[in-house]
Amino acid sequence: MNPVLFIREKREGGKHREEDLKAFLLGYLKDEVPDYQVAAWLMAAFLRGLDREETLWLTETMAYSGKVLDLSGLPHPVDKHSSGGVGDKVSLVVGPILAASGCTFAKMSGRGLAHTGGTIDKLESVPGWRGEMTEAEFLERARRVGLVIAAQSPDLAPLDGKLYALRDVTATVESIPLIASSIMSKKLAAGARSIVLDVKVGKGAFMKTLEEARLLARTMVEIGQGAGRRVKALLTSMEAPLGRAVGNAIEVREAILALRGEGPEDLVGVALRLAEEALRLEGLDPSLARKALESGAALEKFAAFLKAQGGDPRVVEDFSLLPLGEELPLLCQEAGVVREVDAYRVGLAVLALGGGRRKKGEAIDHGVGVYLLKKPGDRVAKGEALALLYHRGRGVEEALDHLRQAFVLGETASPLPLVLEAVG
Amino acid sequence: MNPVLFIREKREGGKHREEDLKAFLLGYLKDEVPDYQVAAWLMAAFLRGLDREETLWLTETMAYSGKVLDLSGLPHPVDKHSSGGVGDKVSLVVGPILAASGCTFAKMSGRGLAHTGGTIDKLESVPGWRGEMTEAEFLERARRVGLVIAAQSPDLAPLDGKLYALRDVTATVESIPLIASSIMSKKLAAGARSIVLDVKVGKGAFMKTLEEARLLARTMVEIGQGAGRRVKALLTSMEAPLGRAVGNAIEVREAILALRGEGPEDLVGVALRLAEEALRLEGLDPSLARKALESGAALEKFAAFLKAQGGDPRVVEDFSLLPLGEELPLLCQEAGVVREVDAYRVGLAVLALGGGRRKKGEAIDHGVGVYLLKKPGDRVAKGEALALLYHRGRGVEEALDHLRQAFVLGETASPLPLVLEAVG
Repeated sequence: MNPVLFIREKREGGKHREEDLKAFLLGYLKDEVPDYQVAAWLMAAFLRGLDREETLWLTETMAYSGKVLDLSGLPHPVDKHSSGGVGDKVSLVVGPILAASGCTFAKMSGRGLAHTGGTIDKLESVPGWRGEMTEAEFLERARRVGLVIAAQSPDLAPLDGKLYALRDVTATVESIPLIASSIMSKKLAAGARSIVLDVKVGKGAFMKTLEEARLLARTMVEIGQGAGRRVKALLTSMEAPLGRAVGNAIEVREAILALRGEGPEDLVGVALRLAEEALRLEGLDPSLARKALESGAALEKFAAFLKAQGGDPRVVEDFSLLPLGEELPLLCQEAGVVREVDAYRVGLAVLALGGGRRKKGEAIDHGVGVYLLKKPGDRVAKGEALALLYHRGRGVEEALDHLRQAFVLGETASPLPLVLEAVG
Repeated sequence: MNPVLFIREKREGGKHREEDLKAFLLGYLKDEVPDYQVAAWLMAAFLRGLDREETLWLTETMAYSGKVLDLSGLPHPVDKHSSGGVGDKVSLVVGPILAASGCTFAKMSGRGLAHTGGTIDKLESVPGWRGEMTEAEFLERARRVGLVIAAQSPDLAPLDGKLYALRDVTATVESIPLIASSIMSKKLAAGARSIVLDVKVGKGAFMKTLEEARLLARTMVEIGQGAGRRVKALLTSMEAPLGRAVGNAIEVREAILALRGEGPEDLVGVALRLAEEALRLEGLDPSLARKALESGAALEKFAAFLKAQGGDPRVVEDFSLLPLGEELPLLCQEAGVVREVDAYRVGLAVLALGGGRRKKGEAIDHGVGVYLLKKPGDRVAKGEALALLYHRGRGVEEALDHLRQAFVLGETASPLPLVLEAVG
């Protein structure tokens, strides 16, 4: 494999051979192929595309570039991925449901960036909870509790981490094959047999159109199936935030409410549907999901999970254990019907309050956030509160600005269905 | 200028702003923009293209990235560039003709690479001749002799050197705007007012088709004119080598023969035509070129030029001062008419003999080469010699192989005209 000829091949729109692609990529991992050659190749791949086989080879090379977890000895190992949204606390609800339904939900999660939150950040608002652990601890918790969520380990798919960092600075992020292979490489390395994917579509998502989201979902499903896994993807709407809470601690609170059977409806709907798909993939009865939720078994699992990872399990009953900023209502200037609550703008509001990070590694405040009192379809009177801000005195004006722009009033509203399509 | 947004702009097929392009490129020169970002941008520019203005801005940024020569005080400063061919010793003939016609021919030249030779390599076969010199020496020789040829200085257009090295390892060489701007940046920095371009087309050239060559010529002419210079390009055929000699010392010998009025016809034809174009650009009488040649004034200039740069001027009368390998004829296996002498194959034959370099920095043998006894249109009898090899016992079999493939015999031949088109 001559790197220059390899880059030229993609530049000319050709198809790589599997061994060349692997040699080039593993050469990069070993610092034998320099980053400038990989950067040129990434741009050529971005503009010329990677076909189904090349995308699978890329994914497998990344997946097996480091440590690979073996969950095959555990009952029904399932994993879940969301393409990232605003107010997306679905994992905190799906995980306990699946664990209480007889599955092993053993997941690696990321931290939030830009306008989207991360599961690890949210869980860290529970006093004492930690996402960092050894591989042995991860496997032990998966076995004992059936539910474990760890911070993404740099030992898994290290080539993905290295390539992603390079894509980030070379304007080669927004490519469907590159995005799909990055996500799926981590899922393959994490070892689950079945994987459900929640691909978000709309203003608050990375995929703005149904067409893009469908292509991403199809590409990820093809990769997973090509690598011998069971995969199903749902396309779900991210025009408005999911649920009413956006922020770290308040999202945990809302997830607990959902596990207690106290809604909100959209969150519970998406979580149940994903859990049912995962159960089907594992050949289990999908109605187990609702039973796990309604019996309180899922809530119990969540408490056990928090405890196993050092967190205070009493939060499921006592929300005062969670951090919370000062409350400030956003009042409505006119009467009408809420037509739209722009999830992207709400995400930016929380970012302004300090609840998210603009750059990797920034500290965040778990107690700030936005709680939506009104959602699309709700009628609102002049002077009524649209939302509550939880703040620490920082970024309030900017957040209010974003929120005012997020709410669009009209005379009628026709909210989209939440689950738009299934793929796989 | 945010480098990631800048790269993305080109990735999406957008047009850069002049200040952004300059900031990105000068950032690279100063090592503030890393090579991997430039590599990604180069691939995006390769695949998305650069428009006329962007190409001019790129060229000017490179041209003025280092030292710029000021030839404006010298009479009729002209420069000449060839896009590289086999047996292309045109500069050695054009330069003396123009200097003897009242122009200042002050040129920076490169070394040969792959199957093509370089003017500096050829001249270094003259005992004592050196292409390295200070700027003061360059200007003094330009003023005193009217003719100076220096090895390309790394102080001129250093950004071009840096970008070219990166293009070389990222499969981003063969792009018309990038090639044209690289060539023209060096010409702009070298300070001539008029520039004649010899764009080679055909088997032995980098441009294989008339269409590509025309586009390259047009792009270079536009750049030069956009930067306020007078530019004319000729497209000339490089199917067969120019002249009969291919190699270093034997090309110098052939150039001297041409300056003595002893042909070969094709070389003299191209040299005179380029000289005439240069004289026209400078508002001088084009017939001065032929007079300079026929009067012997051009030959005298050449001798003075060799001497000024440390070379032995007696070589113009005594070829035994030039190195020469052992002679071996290539005999013809059948009778016929030479239809084709593939310049590329002849170039490879000389490379095999050690007369060229496969990699930058390799040493070469000035005494080896190929002398074509037969050229397209010539009739040849069985057993007659087609060519003479000059060798040092190295690479002879490989060279003979290439040469046998270079000669294509038939019943008739219809050689192309030598000057195909003029642009500008």
